[in-house]
Amino acid sequence: MADHLRLYNHLLLTEAQRDRLDVVLVRPRNPLNIGAAARAMANFGFTRLSVVAPYSPPWREARSAVGAPELLQEAKRTECLAEAVAGCTLVAGTGTLTYRKPEQPVVPLPGLAPLVGLELARGGRVAVVFGPEKHGLTRDDLSYCHILAEIPTDPRQPSMNLGQAVAVCLYELACRAAAPENSALEAEMEAARRAAPCGELDRLAGLVEEAMTAVGYSPRSMQAANRHDLRLLLRRLALSSSDTRRILGLFRRILWRMNRGQERG
Amino acid sequence: MADHLRLYNHLLLTEAQRDRLDVVLVRPRNPLNIGAAARAMANFGFTRLSVVAPYSPPWREARSAVGAPELLQEAKRTECLAEAVAGCTLVAGTGTLTYRKPEQPVVPLPGLAPLVGLELARGGRVAVVFGPEKHGLTRDDLSYCHILAEIPTDPRQPSMNLGQAVAVCLYELACRAAAPENSALEAEMEAARRAAPCGELDRLAGLVEEAMTAVGYSPRSMQAANRHDLRLLLRRLALSSSDTRRILGLFRRILWRMNRGQERG
Repeated sequence: MADHLRLYNHLLLTEAQRDRLDVVLVRPRNPLNIGAAARAMANFGFTRLSVVAPYSPPWREARSAVGAPELLQEAKRTECLAEAVAGCTLVAGTGTLTYRKPEQPVVPLPGLAPLVGLELARGGRVAVVFGPEKHGLTRDDLSYCHILAEIPTDPRQPSMNLGQAVAVCLYELACRAAAPENSALEAEMEAARRAAPCGELDRLAGLVEEAMTAVGYSPRSMQAANRHDLRLLLRRLALSSSDTRRILGLFRRILWRMNRGQERG
Repeated sequence: MADHLRLYNHLLLTEAQRDRLDVVLVRPRNPLNIGAAARAMANFGFTRLSVVAPYSPPWREARSAVGAPELLQEAKRTECLAEAVAGCTLVAGTGTLTYRKPEQPVVPLPGLAPLVGLELARGGRVAVVFGPEKHGLTRDDLSYCHILAEIPTDPRQPSMNLGQAVAVCLYELACRAAAPENSALEAEMEAARRAAPCGELDRLAGLVEEAMTAVGYSPRSMQAANRHDLRLLLRRLALSSSDTRRILGLFRRILWRMNRGQERG
């Protein structure tokens, strides 16, 4: 076998980069699928698994299965998706688009790899989010995602098995999410405008909502819808971490001033 | 969403091309895996499934499962791999290489797509062959393959689940095995030297072996090994269909002549 072919055979992401990619399973129901997802992660060298609000019996069953990979024992369990992705600077939902109009940019899976490669090269943390078996990610789940990665499938049978969808996505990322050329230099340049992690965006969203309430911008009936739109808006803006802190400071000041005004009035 | 991204979203192979790609499962044991393989085929628009010497109970169970795709009902069942791939002009085995020294060219899975795309564009028929769950394809199975496609995995956990391996391979082929540019012209040029289907190669191998025996080339103890090497040799030569028929004619003539000689002597 020719040596130049052998070179291909490596997983392109470094181990350190793969450790900055989280696989997030939202409300999985079937222990076999949880196990299959963990096995695919081990196959492609990923170690960080988060499970959001799993149904308890299958989750226990999956973790105690014979031969369950170590990463399943060490998986992070959270009650909500916001908590699972709080430390991430790029969150990609997955799914097919047959009966959904997405509210954020959609990339086909082959287009996701370069975005993930760049984000990892600039020192960010990435989450790839998979929905439950029956219906995939909900509109609310997706509002925590910067982008939606669509696996190209046949329209006659678009819905993939969860374990197989995880395998396909991780194969694509492991083999094709290479750091771009001159990545060291680029990473240094990018560091200054490092993306805000999702937890910071959520703190900002909380403050903006408080301000909306304080000034009577948002009637009670619109609060849930406004909260949803605000989450999406903040992700579209692609705020850097330092910009986010600046805006956070402004809104803290606005709220402080308004509260003082109320005290006086 | 930008239109140029939408374009990506198509499966690149045409339906007619996908119908000239066979998925072959060799001695599968687990009905869930057979079902998962069939589901991945349906997801990526492939319809032709062959199953070689399946263990009977799981095969019956898989076919009768609720929601089993139609292609599982129409799957071809054969007793040996040679029969399953007899009509194919390019046979790719799959697996990982941890404890095996392959005897034929190895391509990493990302390198398989252009080869398959070209073969389909020139009107050939392709088989992608998957081994049983426990140990993958045997050395004997692989001797029926022109090439071995290796899924790049982490050396610490190289062995993939069968259903996930099928999903990953079909995703790669469906999304990246595009016909090359100018494919119509090229296909016409290539038609003249269309590759020999495996059934023709096996007929030739049978005649050559007969000739070996007739001239006492091959001691009995070496027959199995020689047969194995001959199968690999004939695949390495990449014979066209017309060349194969020419050589078949020659060996028929040799055998006829020798038999006549024996009658005289």
